[in-house]
Amino acid sequence: MLEELKRKVYEANMELPRRGLVLLTWGNVSGIDRETGCFVIKPSGVDYERLTPEDMVVMDLKGNKVEGRLKPSSDTLTHLEIYKRYEQIGGITHTHSTEAVAWAQAGRDIPLYGTTHADYMFGDIPCTRNLTTEEIEEAYEANTGKVIVETLAERGINPVYTPAILCKNHGPFTFGKDAMESVHHAVILEEIAKMARYTEALNANCGHAPDNIKEKHFYRKHGENAYYGQQG
Amino acid sequence: MLEELKRKVYEANMELPRRGLVLLTWGNVSGIDRETGCFVIKPSGVDYERLTPEDMVVMDLKGNKVEGRLKPSSDTLTHLEIYKRYEQIGGITHTHSTEAVAWAQAGRDIPLYGTTHADYMFGDIPCTRNLTTEEIEEAYEANTGKVIVETLAERGINPVYTPAILCKNHGPFTFGKDAMESVHHAVILEEIAKMARYTEALNANCGHAPDNIKEKHFYRKHGENAYYGQQG
Amino acid sequence: MLEELKRKVYEANMELPRRGLVLLTWGNVSGIDRETGCFVIKPSGVDYERLTPEDMVVMDLKGNKVEGRLKPSSDTLTHLEIYKRYEQIGGITHTHSTEAVAWAQAGRDIPLYGTTHADYMFGDIPCTRNLTTEEIEEAYEANTGKVIVETLAERGINPVYTPAILCKNHGPFTFGKDAMESVHHAVILEEIAKMARYTEALNANCGHAPDNIKEKHFYRKHGENAYYGQQG
Amino acid sequence: MLEELKRKVYEANMELPRRGLVLLTWGNVSGIDRETGCFVIKPSGVDYERLTPEDMVVMDLKGNKVEGRLKPSSDTLTHLEIYKRYEQIGGITHTHSTEAVAWAQAGRDIPLYGTTHADYMFGDIPCTRNLTTEEIEEAYEANTGKVIVETLAERGINPVYTPAILCKNHGPFTFGKDAMESVHHAVILEEIAKMARYTEALNANCGHAPDNIKEKHFYRKHGENAYYGQQG
Repeated sequence: MLEELKRKVYEANMELPRRGLVLLTWGNVSGIDRETGCFVIKPSGVDYERLTPEDMVVMDLKGNKVEGRLKPSSDTLTHLEIYKRYEQIGGITHTHSTEAVAWAQAGRDIPLYGTTHADYMFGDIPCTRNLTTEEIEEAYEANTGKVIVETLAERGINPVYTPAILCKNHGPFTFGKDAMESVHHAVILEEIAKMARYTEALNANCGHAPDNIKEKHFYRKHGENAYYGQQG
Repeated sequence: MLEELKRKVYEANMELPRRGLVLLTWGNVSGIDRETGCFVIKPSGVDYERLTPEDMVVMDLKGNKVEGRLKPSSDTLTHLEIYKRYEQIGGITHTHSTEAVAWAQAGRDIPLYGTTHADYMFGDIPCTRNLTTEEIEEAYEANTGKVIVETLAERGINPVYTPAILCKNHGPFTFGKDAMESVHHAVILEEIAKMARYTEALNANCGHAPDNIKEKHFYRKHGENAYYGQQG
Repeated sequence: MLEELKRKVYEANMELPRRGLVLLTWGNVSGIDRETGCFVIKPSGVDYERLTPEDMVVMDLKGNKVEGRLKPSSDTLTHLEIYKRYEQIGGITHTHSTEAVAWAQAGRDIPLYGTTHADYMFGDIPCTRNLTTEEIEEAYEANTGKVIVETLAERGINPVYTPAILCKNHGPFTFGKDAMESVHHAVILEEIAKMARYTEALNANCGHAPDNIKEKHFYRKHGENAYYGQQG
Repeated sequence: MLEELKRKVYEANMELPRRGLVLLTWGNVSGIDRETGCFVIKPSGVDYERLTPEDMVVMDLKGNKVEGRLKPSSDTLTHLEIYKRYEQIGGITHTHSTEAVAWAQAGRDIPLYGTTHADYMFGDIPCTRNLTTEEIEEAYEANTGKVIVETLAERGINPVYTPAILCKNHGPFTFGKDAMESVHHAVILEEIAKMARYTEALNANCGHAPDNIKEKHFYRKHGENAYYGQQG
């Protein structure tokens, strides 16, 4: 079932090593079919060189494996919580990409310092709180998803417009309308995170980019008055 | 029309991903034919892998599309303002290359710290002011070009001799006698920007390179007494 | 003799330049056969491009060359001391990889800042003391191994669970159940070291990751309740 | 004439872009034939992709071109001064490699922080003074060579044992017994410079590596008691 989605999720996963976002077996991408309510995700701990579309695992939104020979990614229940809460998200990527992890380990939001950031993310990239020991022991992966949802809600962030978040002392999750777009947002997040680190090294007191730039660049690419690209 | 120029501008654009200066669809290069007063530029938001010479868009200096199936780069009117003001510029490159963006986000000129810089740029690389909200709302891209021109004029910089500028909280534009030379200046700017960041990390108080070095290296390569290379 | 082990140790050595962990002839990997008590190691100062499985040198645990045309790695006696002390170690890698060397030169342990670290190393990566002049003059390489053993013992570290150590002003050694796993731990160490450097640049006072995260991530991958990957 | 040397110097030059030490036409390598007193050097400003062994230029030690269609590197007279003073040098490399240039622009010697450095360079890498305006105007390239010689002499450095130097606000020159060895020393210098920058970021007060380590590692590889590698 969902052969086309499995192929697309497979291709999105294979983009991670190509883009230099993962080492060894790290990282995972999923994509959801909203009609059947099933999502497809990378299996746990399999080398990218040996991965095939048939290895992808099909899950339902109750956490049951619907199809697949292999165990799904250990982060599957984090993806599930996000899909359940946000109908508009069609794909999710999790990596341990170097620059984004550094911000997550530093426990800091990534400030919006310029137009590269504003072109894709409408505001700072949020960093969550740590999970409590109880949350870790009870259901680590599901609660990671719940803390992501909590953070977005508390800050009034729409993950369609700011499709990236950092889990404290862990790493980034990115979102998209499908699996491949969530990977592209992971590529962009890594670049934004690097630029922001360099920016602070050059000027520790530079401050955020002005709001008028943030809004201009975001609305050049998003919404009904967008005029970047060939569509619309 | 301008088939030869379209091919050259296409080749110059393709050099951006090869040199690691752009991700995804970022960046754009243009080149001008001063006889017809038309310039050729990359279309907006097209993947480099799918780009062809025929996709290039021909514009006149009033901002009319003269030829081309696709929409021109969203930054087209910035290029136009620069071509209008500086007859001696034949090619323009805009990227979001990491190191140059970091200086732009930090809101700082890049100081001339050594001969690598002096070989190509006669003095610090300037960083513009931010646009006002009115300038953004009225005509963002055209006014970006006007602020570039204003900055060069105020500082008495000849863009033939210092063929690079940073737009605050945005990124670099570089110039050249043709499209490919403007790309080479983008490559060199990125390297200079990186060297300057590292230099400050090693010695926060190093100060500029002496003027005598700046002048010697610039005139080894430029002007009638130049003796670098095989020409002249 | 030990043709299969020689081939595996050769493959593990060839992984070092592929993973960008070594320049020129730097680095060495060994693997041990506990039945015969012999270990196989890279010869000293041979280019990776010209290396063959037949070039591997077979040593016994008294330091005698059992087989091989070439001289073994100059670090052979360091490997030997580690194999003698820790029965559970099956492979050892030594590199001068950039990020790990920087921590060794800084004379600092690498703090556990996040889950990427915790997935593979149960606590900070220790940095040894310097050898004394007497230890250097008497038997530099063997005493390097003894100081590694001393450091692990003093800190109560099991090298199966924290399979990496930094030798002060020198560089890293990593361990594994076989030669290739020790190389993978060298890859991971380099990434962890880089992430930790970036983390401190972003937040000099970030502090360690909480113990509950450290333990959760380690036991997701290790021990009888592990649930990462396809085994078990 | 000197066809074999021209081929070797050509190969050594081609190693520069392969090792990532140069952009565009930057950098130059030479090698000398002490019997004829002639040295062979890269032509000025030629793309590496179009370079051939026949393009190499033959010079004598009085600065006369002995053979060659093209103009020699603009840095030729710097090489000449070094060959004249040091009989034991057989090859010289000049680059603008990023990390070494950063130290030169910072105006700092590279401190010996560990064994990677000590394996190849017996002590700190010196940084010269700036040239005076008179020295620049009179004979820039020859005087650059003379300031290199002056610096080595004042500090009592033997360029066979510390085969690298930084010219202030400019970049590195490295030496070797032949052209290719001087390139390898340029590769190593770049790595040492990077490691030293990272080391200081992690511990601004780390201090030099102890002298006993410096001496041990240097004499493992150099002199009559050397035991690294397969020779001797």
